[in-house]
Amino acid sequence: MKITCSQSELLKGVNTVLKAVPTRTTMAILECILIDATGEEIKLTANDMEIGIETRISGTIEEKGVIAIDARLFGDIINTCPNSAVTIECDDKYQTLITCEESKVNIIGKPGDDFSNIPVIPRNEPLIISQLTLKDLIRQTTFTISEANANNKMMTGELIEITGDNLKMVALDKYRISIRNIKLKDSYPDKKVIIPGKTLNEIAKIMSGGSEDRVEIYFTDNHIIFEFDKTTVVSRLIEGEFINIDHMISNDYETKVKVNKSNLSEEIHGMTVILNRDPENKPFIMDIKEGNMEIRINSTIAKREGKIAVEKDGKDLVIGFNPKLFNDALKAIDDEDVTLYLVNHRSPCFIKDDEGSYIYVILPVNIQE
Amino acid sequence: MKITCSQSELLKGVNTVLKAVPTRTTMAILECILIDATGEEIKLTANDMEIGIETRISGTIEEKGVIAIDARLFGDIINTCPNSAVTIECDDKYQTLITCEESKVNIIGKPGDDFSNIPVIPRNEPLIISQLTLKDLIRQTTFTISEANANNKMMTGELIEITGDNLKMVALDKYRISIRNIKLKDSYPDKKVIIPGKTLNEIAKIMSGGSEDRVEIYFTDNHIIFEFDKTTVVSRLIEGEFINIDHMISNDYETKVKVNKSNLSEEIHGMTVILNRDPENKPFIMDIKEGNMEIRINSTIAKREGKIAVEKDGKDLVIGFNPKLFNDALKAIDDEDVTLYLVNHRSPCFIKDDEGSYIYVILPVNIQE
Repeated sequence: MKITCSQSELLKGVNTVLKAVPTRTTMAILECILIDATGEEIKLTANDMEIGIETRISGTIEEKGVIAIDARLFGDIINTCPNSAVTIECDDKYQTLITCEESKVNIIGKPGDDFSNIPVIPRNEPLIISQLTLKDLIRQTTFTISEANANNKMMTGELIEITGDNLKMVALDKYRISIRNIKLKDSYPDKKVIIPGKTLNEIAKIMSGGSEDRVEIYFTDNHIIFEFDKTTVVSRLIEGEFINIDHMISNDYETKVKVNKSNLSEEIHGMTVILNRDPENKPFIMDIKEGNMEIRINSTIAKREGKIAVEKDGKDLVIGFNPKLFNDALKAIDDEDVTLYLVNHRSPCFIKDDEGSYIYVILPVNIQE
Repeated sequence: MKITCSQSELLKGVNTVLKAVPTRTTMAILECILIDATGEEIKLTANDMEIGIETRISGTIEEKGVIAIDARLFGDIINTCPNSAVTIECDDKYQTLITCEESKVNIIGKPGDDFSNIPVIPRNEPLIISQLTLKDLIRQTTFTISEANANNKMMTGELIEITGDNLKMVALDKYRISIRNIKLKDSYPDKKVIIPGKTLNEIAKIMSGGSEDRVEIYFTDNHIIFEFDKTTVVSRLIEGEFINIDHMISNDYETKVKVNKSNLSEEIHGMTVILNRDPENKPFIMDIKEGNMEIRINSTIAKREGKIAVEKDGKDLVIGFNPKLFNDALKAIDDEDVTLYLVNHRSPCFIKDDEGSYIYVILPVNIQE
């Protein structure tokens, strides 16, 4: 194999596929990037068996061939080459020579046959969405996904549900639910899949993310495929039924509070710096009255209270929450004001807008003041 | 005690003295900041017994008094207050109330008597230097100081030597020496002291650092005092004689090489990304010939070589160095070109300028190619 391409283009490609290279693995081949110059284009691929990324870069193929190279080492080498033409040449013993101006690097590659290529999947009609919208949806929901957890694999993923021209994304953990709805430009066949949280976070990082940049999404029984720019991401889906959240969502409330989002968020943050030091992991208390809401904590380390103007409908209420869970939800909302819907001090708080574009559900913490 | 000051002024003051608050200590009082409003001004002080920092902030003293408060907790509380007037009030049981707009925080302070004030030191004529110059000198030398090491406390410090109008700073570890000389505007009595590296790094962080901003330096037998802006830093000196480096410095050379600093630095960095993965901690090799220098490594992970144009006087030479030590020195030099003076593959390399404003000495690593 002998190929030549620009250092910047190659580096961008390597950084894209690196997102699918596991940091710890016992299979050395998974730590490799595949450089495939057997066809008309130069393709870079990485695959950790859960998520596979392939990206195409421009360059000239002087001699067709394929080689697998340690991905992070290769990335570091390309990153420290001058911004100039890079030539990669390898012989039939996988001795690889990388040349860029006066720099020459020799490394040993591995045969491409050992590499697990990403599955070739028949494509139907794609769902089309702007990269900006998809990045927003991911930022606004994935924070809720549980950490990798063998007990409940389903909770490490996120539901994507398509119904006509509506796309719904749902993420949840034991204490909260995050729901986002958007209208698509077209209608599509109904679809309900669970995507690993890792996949969503990685594609959010590699998409350029303009509102004019599109991403095409294909579904199969076991996989989801994202195609954008010159990159293809194939991810396994998580098998099983997503938790049915419909019975958890209610429109009843006893107290409705409209409040400035930044004021509330800053006040809660002020409580967090104290509660973070408290070994008892106490909640903060929201004391909702006519015209204002008092936020307070009573920790062994310090007492703190603050007051925020609100517009209240319904009953007064005293309720406690974990400050991080509450601020995570506020951070995901771009509106200036938010509206909270509450029933009593044991029932979840719903933060939602009138259009139904988002619903954040947060369980309260039991308080004994 | 009751005082009122602006949140921004108070936060700046707290962040300044926080540099003298130890992260781990068994003495809870050392984790405190002293707020002293017994005089005409509000003074904040922190003191870890090695370095003490006092800063004065403007504000009104409504009731004189003094209190010690957990420094990091207090810093976090002030940081999360709105940018408005802050009132701090404490009673004779050290119950402290911090009020800022609608925020009220109650914490328990400690009596100021328990606090170790920074020593009051008689001041002679100060040495005056610009903050920018001092910050530069610190940046250009402290990287050489050994990590905190009980075996040789002297090597955790840096020599400051004043001879007439010359100020020399010297830092060293087992493998290298960094020397900087500057001309002062005036002449001062001769002086030779060893300052803890930590002190220098902390004052570099808190000085605003303009070329017009001055710092006044006072010396006593056991302390050095830096006065700048509204801040006083008192540091213990390290006792003992600094290692005599005069016999290590030589002007003899067999090979003199002038080279572009960025080219050399980038080439060495390219070697570093490979050598960092090499368990043998191998050196890079500099192969100095007429007109060019080859930089190469021969690691089990990869071989790499690069070539840089140089102007050479004297003999050809093949010599090995630790890449990090070499690049640390290059990073501390602001010149476009650097000149290396070498004798043979076992003798140190001197990087110095014609004016004698800097000398960086680096020991080579034995190479068996």
